[in-house]
Order: sequence, then C-alpha cells, then structure tokens
Amino acid sequence: MPAGFAAGGRAAGIKPSGRPDVAMIVATAGLAAVAATFTRNLVSAAPVRLSREHLAATGGRARAVIVTSGSANAATGAPGDADQARIAAYVAAALGCRPDETLAASTGLIGTRLPVDAVGQAIGALVAGGLSPDETGLAAALEAMMTTDSRRKAASATLELPGTDGLARTVRVTGIVKGVGMIHPNMATMIAVVLTDAAVAPGTLDDLLRPAVGSSFDMLTVDGDTSTNDTVFTLASGGSGSAEVLPGAPAAAALGAALAAVCRSLARQQAADGEGASTLLTCRVSGAADATDARAIARAVVGSSLLKAAVHGRDPNWGRAAAAAGAATRPDGSPVGLRPEVLRIALCGTPVFAGQPVVFDAGALSRAMDAPEVVFELDLGVGGASAEAWGCDLTEAYVRENSEYST
Amino acid sequence: MPAGFAAGGRAAGIKPSGRPDVAMIVATAGLAAVAATFTRNLVSAAPVRLSREHLAATGGRARAVIVTSGSANAATGAPGDADQARIAAYVAAALGCRPDETLAASTGLIGTRLPVDAVGQAIGALVAGGLSPDETGLAAALEAMMTTDSRRKAASATLELPGTDGLARTVRVTGIVKGVGMIHPNMATMIAVVLTDAAVAPGTLDDLLRPAVGSSFDMLTVDGDTSTNDTVFTLASGGSGSAEVLPGAPAAAALGAALAAVCRSLARQQAADGEGASTLLTCRVSGAADATDARAIARAVVGSSLLKAAVHGRDPNWGRAAAAAGAATRPDGSPVGLRPEVLRIALCGTPVFAGQPVVFDAGALSRAMDAPEVVFELDLGVGGASAEAWGCDLTEAYVRENSEYST
Repeated sequence: MPAGFAAGGRAAGIKPSGRPDVAMIVATAGLAAVAATFTRNLVSAAPVRLSREHLAATGGRARAVIVTSGSANAATGAPGDADQARIAAYVAAALGCRPDETLAASTGLIGTRLPVDAVGQAIGALVAGGLSPDETGLAAALEAMMTTDSRRKAASATLELPGTDGLARTVRVTGIVKGVGMIHPNMATMIAVVLTDAAVAPGTLDDLLRPAVGSSFDMLTVDGDTSTNDTVFTLASGGSGSAEVLPGAPAAAALGAALAAVCRSLARQQAADGEGASTLLTCRVSGAADATDARAIARAVVGSSLLKAAVHGRDPNWGRAAAAAGAATRPDGSPVGLRPEVLRIALCGTPVFAGQPVVFDAGALSRAMDAPEVVFELDLGVGGASAEAWGCDLTEAYVRENSEYST
Repeated sequence: MPAGFAAGGRAAGIKPSGRPDVAMIVATAGLAAVAATFTRNLVSAAPVRLSREHLAATGGRARAVIVTSGSANAATGAPGDADQARIAAYVAAALGCRPDETLAASTGLIGTRLPVDAVGQAIGALVAGGLSPDETGLAAALEAMMTTDSRRKAASATLELPGTDGLARTVRVTGIVKGVGMIHPNMATMIAVVLTDAAVAPGTLDDLLRPAVGSSFDMLTVDGDTSTNDTVFTLASGGSGSAEVLPGAPAAAALGAALAAVCRSLARQQAADGEGASTLLTCRVSGAADATDARAIARAVVGSSLLKAAVHGRDPNWGRAAAAAGAATRPDGSPVGLRPEVLRIALCGTPVFAGQPVVFDAGALSRAMDAPEVVFELDLGVGGASAEAWGCDLTEAYVRENSEYST
C-alpha cells in the first residue's frame, strides 16, 4: 500500500447477496494528483460523467474515490445523475472536503438505481473507522468492487526515486481492478484504481498513464462488449517523500515503467479471470508495418469468438487466427497491412503456418494448449512494429453466466 | 427453379462423413450474366481469388458455379491456388467451355487442401447425368454446400416482366445459401447463389445486387468472425423470355426488389440457423441521423455477446442493448449520433427505456421473449434514417460446436 492512502469496503445492500458493495479510497494527507481514463461509450454511466466534471473543475485533484458495485447507475437518466451527486455530497460531508474533490465509479446491472441513503450510511461508517492505511484496507475495497470476478486482482511495483533531499526514497505503485465481463475497452476498462506515493503533478501523471493504459487495458477483450462504466483512476499522494517527478526526467520514465507494469499485470489477470474463462489467450504480433496494424491484429485475434471456442476445446485450429487477422481493420476502418504469403503463425511455440500450412503433430499441440495461457504469435513479415493483446477462451460457463444475469 | 439452369450435388470424400460435398450449378443455354460480392478478408480463399479473376476476364459471364464443402481451401498458399485452377479445368473440360467461364466457392476447415482428382471425378459424373433443371437439382446442390447448417435455406420470388414481344413473362428469382458460423459479413457472406431467368446485363445485375446484399447479408452476424470465403453469386440466364432489363427502367426496380426480398429471406434464415442458435435476434433502428449510423447501431446490437446470451436466457436485460448501441462506431471509426436522453428502446413490443428506465413486468416480458424471433427496436430520436440487422442468441451449443470443430 503506497503511503498517504487509506481504504476500506462495506455492504450497503446494493448486492442482493449482502456482500460488500461500497469501496472507498481516501488520500489521507490532502488532495492527491489524479489521472483518469473513461469509457468512450456514448451511453456513459452517471459516475463517469460526474468524475469527468469533477476532474475538470479541480484540474486533476481529489481526496477520495467511491466505488459502488451491484448497480451500474447507467442509462438511468437525470435521476441517476442526481443520485450520484448526492453520493458525492455524502463523501464530501464525511471527509470535510468539496463534493468536486471526490470521484466515483460504479459497476453492475445497467438501468437500475443506487440506494443512495444506504450508500451514504456506509460512507459515514467507513470514514468513522472503517478505513485502513495498509493492505487489509485495500483488499476490503477490492472485495467491495467485485461483481462476477472469481478472484482478487491486484499488482504492485516499487522503484527508487530521489527525495527532496537528494537521498533515495522507495516509491510504491499499487493497482486493484475489477471486471471480467462486458470488457472490450476503448481507452479504459471496467474499474481500476492505481495508487502511488510518488510526488507528481496531474498533467505529468496523465502523460504517464495514457501509454500505460494503451498497452494494457486497451489491449484486453473478454467479450467484445464495451462497458458504459469503464474507469481507470490513478492517484498520486506524494507520501513517499520523493521529489516531484518532472516531465521528461529519468524519474518520469521510471515511474511510467512501473505504472505500465502494474497495468499490464492487472489486464492479464482480468483476461485470465474472464467470465467463465479457463485460459488466458495471448496474441503477440510482430513484423507489422506500424503499431496501429500490430494492435488491431492482436486485438482481432484474441477477440475472435471462434478462436476463443477453439482454445477452450484445446483445438489447434490456427486457421481461425489467420481469418481473424485478415478481417482486422484499423480504427479508421482501413485494412491492415497483411500479406498471407509472408505471414507466419506459431501456436504455443509450434510453427503452424508460414505462407502455407506447416505440418505439425495435432495431438501433441493440443496437449501443449492444455495450459493456463495459450499464446498465438503472428509475424507479419512486413515491418518492425509489434503489439500484444489478451483475451480468454469462450466457454459454456460464459453463456450460462450471462444468460442468467439480471433475472 | 428459374429457367435456363440445372444443378446437382455429389460426394467426393472431402467431408469425412461421406455426405455430398460437391455442388454444381450450370447455365444450360450458354453464358449467364453474373454479379458477385466477395469477402474483404485479406486472407481470402483460393476460390475467391480465382472467381474474381475469372469474372474480370469475362466481363461478368459464366457457364457454371462449383462449390466444394468440408475444406475452405483458404490459407493454403500457391498449392491451394493451383488446386483451384485444376478444378476449373475439370469443369471446363466437362462442359466444353473455357476455364475462366467457371466460378468457384468453397467452405469448411481453413488450412486444408482439396482432393482435386476426386472433385474432378464428381464433376464428370454430375455433368454426365447428375444435374437436374428442377427443384430437386437445386436441393441437391444446396445439400452439398452445407457444413454445420442444420436445415436447408432457400428463398424464391416471382415477378412479371415484359417479354421481347411485349407480352408479360413470369420471371423467377431463387436463392440458396449455406453458412451458420464465422458469419460477420463485410460485403458478402459465406456462400449464396441466387439464380434468375430474367434477361439482364452483368453491369445492371451488379447494380441491383449491391444494395440487395447491403440490406441483407451485410446486416447479418452470427459470431463476429468474418470468413475467408464469403461469396454471393447471382446468375441471370435470360431463360424466362423477358426483354432485357435496362438500367433505371421499371423492370430494373421490380427485379431489384425481388432480389432484395430473396436475399433478406436468406439472411434471416441464416441468422435463425446460426450455430447453436435457438432464436432469431432482430434489431430495428429508426430515428437515426443517417443510414450509416442506423446500420452501425443495428449491427452492434445484434453482435453483442452479452445481449445474445441474455436473449438465450429470455432475460429482458435491455441495458446490454443500450451499451452496445453506445459503443457502436461508424465504419471510419467515428462515433455514431446517439443521445441517451432521447433514446427509446422497446423489446418484443414492450417499451423498456425512454431516456430513462420504463417500469415493465419482467416476468411477462421474459415469457414474451420465449419465441422464435426476439425484436429490439431502438428509436434514436435524432433523425429519419432506419436499418434492420439480424443475429442469433449465444448458446452453450455454439461453444460446444466450435470447440470441437477441427479435432
């Protein structure tokens, strides 16, 4: 747990199960610097709109993040926005700060309202004695964020940065994430909160967060559905005593690398815990004409329903990877640079295609696929750019889970 | 069966089951006018490349279409192209025409070769006495095209057009289609053959086919995977004795409408027979700013894995339709024109969202969803454009079928 934060979780009755559903993370020594990315879904949730407005008003500073789970507060119209504003008022009253110094995220069923007063009571109880500055507090917050997640997903990195006195300080970067369905991020995914005790201004933090998200959560898909609630918050408390991390300095590169490593670990844990999933599906693309092509193809491969089903069946049906790659398009709709005659594909390290099919032992390869992670490597052979994307297998359990969600 | 064609099917041992796997359709009175659309997948199959070249060489004329099933002849490199050229030579030899006056399509496992000589023998046997000019021939051809299809999918329309003598002639338009998986067409889908005995030049036929495909097969998705082999062929024999259908004439509008009706019926039949599917999922979008928005949103809704699973579970979880619509993008990657505050959604005729959630009887609506077709209607409230798209529910059976396909 980075210095300068406290966290906790509590049940407010949003989840019918009675499990914890209100998570709170507080910057204990005053305003933290914040960088955030949100869903681009046009049907964005009330907490997404509220957090965007608050960050704009404060210039990227916040005292607390409140996360509710069990109801997305999305597609709830003006009443949903009013609910979210009342929750911000509860947080502000409990902490003695301004409402726009609070941030919010929510996850759960779309189209349902939050029980605002029960959430407010939970906030009061948390601030009155339910927050902890150590790992147990963060674990409780994470527990209260989870919905269909089957396990806790967290990651940490430490680095040495110079203090204001020139001596080295240990800086921590710790992230927690929830979300295993409706995951096909477009600039952010579900709900992740990354904390660091580095001292860094909001603008610098934002510059470090965007590439970290771009090569982690943005390269993740579980089911091709982009959520209404995707949110990544990064809060920096300065509590490590490090000197301010300035743009372009070696300290910024080190902090950016730590952020990227934490985000990558969280994204991989999300894919591995995808709804109903049993296997992490990784696609590494190399030899692409540019990074845009590499990213588009890697995402298309891990997003193919047919390939995901094949991975579930340990079926070395590499043709589905070739078909998915060939159908990939760049974000502007233009085709990717792919020439089948120079394309090479390897599955779990075994070459299966090199301009034409390569003979391989299907039984042995199927057995090799019986692992926690299945890796497809595509060498496009037309350039020097690369990318990596993550998904999961498509299982009967995914269908069962998602055909019985709201009723 | 339109006049001027004969068809049939035969087994050549491509399918391990021994079921028919070579379909042949012949224009019996000489070259037919042809219009075609093909997959835009960059990993296009050998028969797709061969057919494109042949149509370019002949200016849109052909004597025969040969369809093989059980092997896609895709991602097979130069040897796969050579195989397809030898098959064209077999057809040409049997019919006494030029190889480039033949067309081909293939469907099945990607990365496997065709047994060319066995296919050649089947072609010889078909031409020697296995083709029929009536419905039984077309049914046999359709049977030989099918892979994971669970039922035959065909559609017909008739219209009256003036003959060369000014008297009315009955013109038939009949289509057959295969394909229930790897269906997310981009300008065409899987394999459809539409025959008509109208007299029409290739260019005119092409002008009529493109909008018909655009509002039918292009609005169809089963699993979001775009095939390497998608092909729609339309052949016009002139056998009805109708006068030539000229561009812009009332006869062209009538023939275009018949083509569109046949293609729409085929696409709906494909969606309803989607791999593992039990339900046809239809989305009608109205009130869109333009047709591009309407089409993008309708396709996004029927393509949502989460919504497809909800439909399977008869779960009136309309929030997934709202989320899918909000995440839709136009083909150039720009956002669609969607304002949640004026959006209205109805499910099976019941209003569920009108800027905010509408109270409804969830049990009654779930029972109403227990039907062969589930319709989502989205009124965007921002313009006058509309579109319709088709998909199917996502079931455990889809996962089982596609995790056990090649092995």
